[in-house]
Amino acid sequence: MPQAICVAIVGFDGFGKGVASLIPHRPDFRLVAVADNQGYVFNAQGLEITEEGGLNQPLNSDPDAVITLLKAHAHQIDAVLMGLPNLPVELLAETVERIMEETGFKGVMVDALKRMDAIEQLFPLSAKLQQHKILYITGAGSTPGFLTGIAAMAAQSFVEVLDVNIHFGIGNYHQEAHRDSVREDFIHLEGFDAQRIACMSAEELAWELGTYGELLNLADENQPDDIILELAGICSRERVRIGGLMDTRNLQKPIHTTVTVTGRVSNGSVGSHQFVVSNEASVIDQVCGPALGFMLRGIELYQRDFFGLMTSADIMPRYSNRIFNVSQEPVGREVALTV
Amino acid sequence: MPQAICVAIVGFDGFGKGVASLIPHRPDFRLVAVADNQGYVFNAQGLEITEEGGLNQPLNSDPDAVITLLKAHAHQIDAVLMGLPNLPVELLAETVERIMEETGFKGVMVDALKRMDAIEQLFPLSAKLQQHKILYITGAGSTPGFLTGIAAMAAQSFVEVLDVNIHFGIGNYHQEAHRDSVREDFIHLEGFDAQRIACMSAEELAWELGTYGELLNLADENQPDDIILELAGICSRERVRIGGLMDTRNLQKPIHTTVTVTGRVSNGSVGSHQFVVSNEASVIDQVCGPALGFMLRGIELYQRDFFGLMTSADIMPRYSNRIFNVSQEPVGREVALTV
Repeated sequence: MPQAICVAIVGFDGFGKGVASLIPHRPDFRLVAVADNQGYVFNAQGLEITEEGGLNQPLNSDPDAVITLLKAHAHQIDAVLMGLPNLPVELLAETVERIMEETGFKGVMVDALKRMDAIEQLFPLSAKLQQHKILYITGAGSTPGFLTGIAAMAAQSFVEVLDVNIHFGIGNYHQEAHRDSVREDFIHLEGFDAQRIACMSAEELAWELGTYGELLNLADENQPDDIILELAGICSRERVRIGGLMDTRNLQKPIHTTVTVTGRVSNGSVGSHQFVVSNEASVIDQVCGPALGFMLRGIELYQRDFFGLMTSADIMPRYSNRIFNVSQEPVGREVALTV
Repeated sequence: MPQAICVAIVGFDGFGKGVASLIPHRPDFRLVAVADNQGYVFNAQGLEITEEGGLNQPLNSDPDAVITLLKAHAHQIDAVLMGLPNLPVELLAETVERIMEETGFKGVMVDALKRMDAIEQLFPLSAKLQQHKILYITGAGSTPGFLTGIAAMAAQSFVEVLDVNIHFGIGNYHQEAHRDSVREDFIHLEGFDAQRIACMSAEELAWELGTYGELLNLADENQPDDIILELAGICSRERVRIGGLMDTRNLQKPIHTTVTVTGRVSNGSVGSHQFVVSNEASVIDQVCGPALGFMLRGIELYQRDFFGLMTSADIMPRYSNRIFNVSQEPVGREVALTV
C-alpha cells in the first residue's frame, strides 16, 4: 500500500465538509489540515472527522489561517482541496497567488468551481503555477467534473460531437451542502446579482426560493462545463447545455440527473449516449467523490512533473488537440424560470 | 495546432481497418504505415485510406513486415496501433518483445485486446517496456476500454462499488469487423477451443452461428474488464460482469448496450448509475474511436516520461491505489447459451 496522501481542506463549508466526510471511505487519503477564514487546525497523524464531515476539535483562531497553515506545514501537505466560497469570484485566484508567493507549497490543488468567471481568473496563473511546481486541477466536482468527464468519455465514439446536454435533478435544495449552488443560481435571476446574493442569509435565500414555488427550472446555467469541454477538444462551447430542475421543498430529486451526448458516428448517422445518475447519489457523492478521484490521479501526474493548470476533462482520454474557432448555432444562455 | 501524431497500424484486420477509417476524422493523427503478416507500406506524408479503412496501394511483400517496418522507420513513428489478431494468444506479447529487442521503436503502443490470457502475457513486460521507453496501453477498445472507462468514472461517486455490469447488444454479427469477437465468443462454447476456432473460415463460423438460431446470449464473457477494474482500484474482479445478446442475422442491435455501476453512497444506501450506448454506434465507433482517444492522451503522458504498461482504466481519474485481496460473493463465469 502506498503512503497516504496528506490533504488539507481550505474553506470548510459544504464542499470542504463533504470531502472531509468521504475521506474515511477513501483509504488513500489522510486529512491533516482544515482552514477557513476563522482559523485552522493541523495534525500530521490525521484529524478526526465526524460522520457529517465536522471536526472534533476547535480551530486555532487566525484571521489569515490559509496562509498561516501553509507557511507552517507546506512540506507536510501533498494536496490542497480548495473549498473556498465562490463569492467574491476574485477570492480563489487571489488566494492561489498568495499561496504561491508566500507559502512555498508544492503539490496538487483541486477545486470544484462552478463559476466560469472564477475559473477564468485561474487561467492566467498557469505559468506561475508551473514555476512553483503546483499542479492545479480546476472544475473537478460534478458539473464540471464528474459529469463533464462522462461526457468527455462518451464523445470518444463519435466522429463529431453535436450536443452535450447535462440536465440535473436536485432535491432538498435548502440543505447546507447546496447553499453555494443556490447562491450561484440566484445570480442568474432577474433582480439579483453576485453582491446582493453574497449578503443574503440562508433564511433570506430560503424565503426567496419559496416565492418561486416548489420547482425551480434553470434552463441554461452559466457553468464552465462548456469551456472545459471546448478546451478538451470535444466541441465548441455553443454545443454544451447545462440546466436542471430543482425541488426546493422535497428531499427527493424531481427528475434523474442525466448527461446526453449526441454525435455523428462514422457512417454519418446521428445517435445519443445517455448517462443516468442514481437518485441515491447526493450532491456530496457526486461532487466530493470525483474530486478525490481527480486528486488521486493528479498526485500521480504530479510525480511525473505535470505542473500548471489543468481542467478535470484534461485528465480523461483526449478527444482532440484542435482549437475550436468556428461558432455553430448558438444556444441561448438566459435563465428561464418557471413555477 | 500541434504536429500530427504519426501512427502505424500493425495488423490490418477488423480493428486496424476500423482505426484507419476513423483517422481522417481525427485531425491529430496521420496514418503513416500499415503492416500485416503479408507485408507493409510506409509513407511519411500519410497514406491514403478508403472510406472503409482500406488502402489505395498494395503492401510491399515481406514475411516479417512488422519488424522490417519498425526497423526501417521507428524514428518516424510516434504511436503503434496493435491490431494483431488475438489468436494465438502468444502472438502479441512475442511481437512486442521482438519490437523492443530488434527495432529501436520508442513511443506509444495501444491495443484493444479482449482476451484476459493475452493481456496477462503483457504484464511481465512492463519493466522492459520502461527500459525501452515505450508506453503500452492495453485494453483500450470498447470492453475493455470505452465502457470500462465509463465504469471507472461512474465509480467515483460511490464509497464502495458493489457491481459493474457491462451488457452489450450487437447486431449484424457476420460482418468483418466482428469476426475476431465471434471467434473469441466461440472459444467459450462447448466443443470449441482456441485452436479449433483459429482454423475455421468465416463461412464455417457463420454456419456454426446459424445452428444457434438468431440470438446468441453470452451470459458472462471471460473478458479482462474485471482485472482492469480491479487493477484500477475500483472493485475486486468478482464484482464485474460482462455479457450480452447478439443478433446473428440482423443489422439492428437486439438490445441497447449498457454499463450499470451499482454502489453504496455515503449515507449507506445503494444506487445504480447507468450508461446507455446509442444503437447508432457501430463496433468501429465504440472500439476504434476510444482507442484513438487513449492513444492521444498516451502521447501526452509519454512526453512526460510515462513508460511501461498501463491499462485503459489507468488513464481515468483514479478510484483508489488499494490492492484487493478479499474475494466477495463470486459470480459464475460459465457461458450460458440460449436460442
